[in-house]
Amino acid sequence: MTVTENEAAGWLSERDNFLILTHIRPDGDTLGCAAGLCAALRKIGKTAYAAVNPGVTSTYLGDIMPYFASEDYAPEHIVAVDIATEGLFPTEFDRLKGKVELCVDHHPSNTHYAEHLCLDASAAACGEILYRIIRDGLGVMDAEIAKALYLAVSTDTGCFVYTNTTPTTHRIAADLMEYGDFAGEINKRCFQTRSRKRMELESRLLQSARYYEDGKVVIGGISMQDMKDVQASESDAEELSSLLRQVEGVKAAATLRELKDGDWKLSLRTDPAYLNATDTCALLGGGGHAAASGARQEGVDRTEMERRVLEAIQENLG
Amino acid sequence: MTVTENEAAGWLSERDNFLILTHIRPDGDTLGCAAGLCAALRKIGKTAYAAVNPGVTSTYLGDIMPYFASEDYAPEHIVAVDIATEGLFPTEFDRLKGKVELCVDHHPSNTHYAEHLCLDASAAACGEILYRIIRDGLGVMDAEIAKALYLAVSTDTGCFVYTNTTPTTHRIAADLMEYGDFAGEINKRCFQTRSRKRMELESRLLQSARYYEDGKVVIGGISMQDMKDVQASESDAEELSSLLRQVEGVKAAATLRELKDGDWKLSLRTDPAYLNATDTCALLGGGGHAAASGARQEGVDRTEMERRVLEAIQENLG
Repeated sequence: MTVTENEAAGWLSERDNFLILTHIRPDGDTLGCAAGLCAALRKIGKTAYAAVNPGVTSTYLGDIMPYFASEDYAPEHIVAVDIATEGLFPTEFDRLKGKVELCVDHHPSNTHYAEHLCLDASAAACGEILYRIIRDGLGVMDAEIAKALYLAVSTDTGCFVYTNTTPTTHRIAADLMEYGDFAGEINKRCFQTRSRKRMELESRLLQSARYYEDGKVVIGGISMQDMKDVQASESDAEELSSLLRQVEGVKAAATLRELKDGDWKLSLRTDPAYLNATDTCALLGGGGHAAASGARQEGVDRTEMERRVLEAIQENLG
Repeated sequence: MTVTENEAAGWLSERDNFLILTHIRPDGDTLGCAAGLCAALRKIGKTAYAAVNPGVTSTYLGDIMPYFASEDYAPEHIVAVDIATEGLFPTEFDRLKGKVELCVDHHPSNTHYAEHLCLDASAAACGEILYRIIRDGLGVMDAEIAKALYLAVSTDTGCFVYTNTTPTTHRIAADLMEYGDFAGEINKRCFQTRSRKRMELESRLLQSARYYEDGKVVIGGISMQDMKDVQASESDAEELSSLLRQVEGVKAAATLRELKDGDWKLSLRTDPAYLNATDTCALLGGGGHAAASGARQEGVDRTEMERRVLEAIQENLG
């Protein structure tokens, strides 16, 4: 059943000994929500821990998330934050499937797997919902909670640059910043820092870019050899597909990644008014959204992969 | 004399036929303030134009600034926005020196050159001050004004990422966004678009980077030949010095630019707790702030320039 934010707060107030779950490949939103909720519950005298999520990257470790449960913690109530489906549980949480009593989420695709679901699909970040549950419902807020929720809200909006950002997002950020001087540090860490390996991958991707259709189409890629040369890990290569889309004048950016020898993945980011990414990727056996789709081709070399991608794009340009 | 925001609004209300000045190498703040003020003054029945600033780049042209005055416009009152000193007038405004009657600004270094100065040094952007003058003082606001002021506020804070961003900045952004659906377009244009030449310069700068002191110090550069190869203009090379500072673990980033054959400029960006940029640049005859300084060396080749910069850095590291 769905519950309001106030009902969710009431439900939390009446119980104790919580375990908070975050999603696989945890981002700032799910981690910030879990940390903020742990801090808030403890502030009102409850026992609360976050379940150890092995996917936490160095960006978010340290003082952001000092709430991981020890192995012998025996929680009474399971809460999930920012997790749309049980399929997004880390495998370590398998035994908790079917046991989530409260889920707070902002994904319209939420599968209602929890006993109680508090959902606001208009929220740019799940952190916006937690902000209201904590401040208005539980009646607490301090620098620690605010820092965690600022992390949630800022990372899910790319620091207020994505189109999901609303006036509400800005107002919540403003209120949170009143509680402490943490925004500068979080912004520096999350939005103004890139690993040297990441920088080298970006550089190689840009060097590899070939432009077509008067600069409206660009194709670039990162091979296994590039990854090896740079000694890059998967996390260094995350979200690389947004880079070429930023080039002035580009309306369709195809980013190729060699996953195994001769096995290439295409990530296509487009202005859908110019090129439908779904239709283009469908020609290569893939799919996705109109502005962001993907496909995979096996047993091809780089030149052949580029040729197939360009052909699919040009066929859809008509 | 200094005036309050209300007094500035009163002064504007009592007069007519304004010319608004913007600063040299105009950014989103000065242009957004001028456009917003023109739109607001026209909305209350006044005649107002912005003085033609030849330095406007393609990012800001178009619908952002449709208020440039024709040559035969004869203004009665001169207003400057976001201009700290007359030294920052474009040369085309030379004849207007000593004639500014009202200056609205947020630079603490403002030289009080105007007859009336409305200054708030706590504002992240001059647009924050104009927002209050226009909404509270002149009593108007609409999508056109709000879009111009959002441009001002967002660009001067790097889209709410710089440490100058305050809760007030976020609240003003929230209020402005209520008036129209413009933030996504401005964010895409100003923060998610880079020219192909810019991308190529960034790529070359990253490729040139050499790391020292366990990766805490980085030195990279762009030569005349790089600029020529890429056919880049000065605007493509703006603010390149922030790039290397973003590399994870870097505490001192030296970006070198060859301005003329054998004439190199250093831009040094540091964590001042690790390295004082002023002291380091002073060894090379330059200066600036503790976290951001510069220096110039003539008659050197790239290798010698890099050697001098590294030597100055290491001398200051002690």
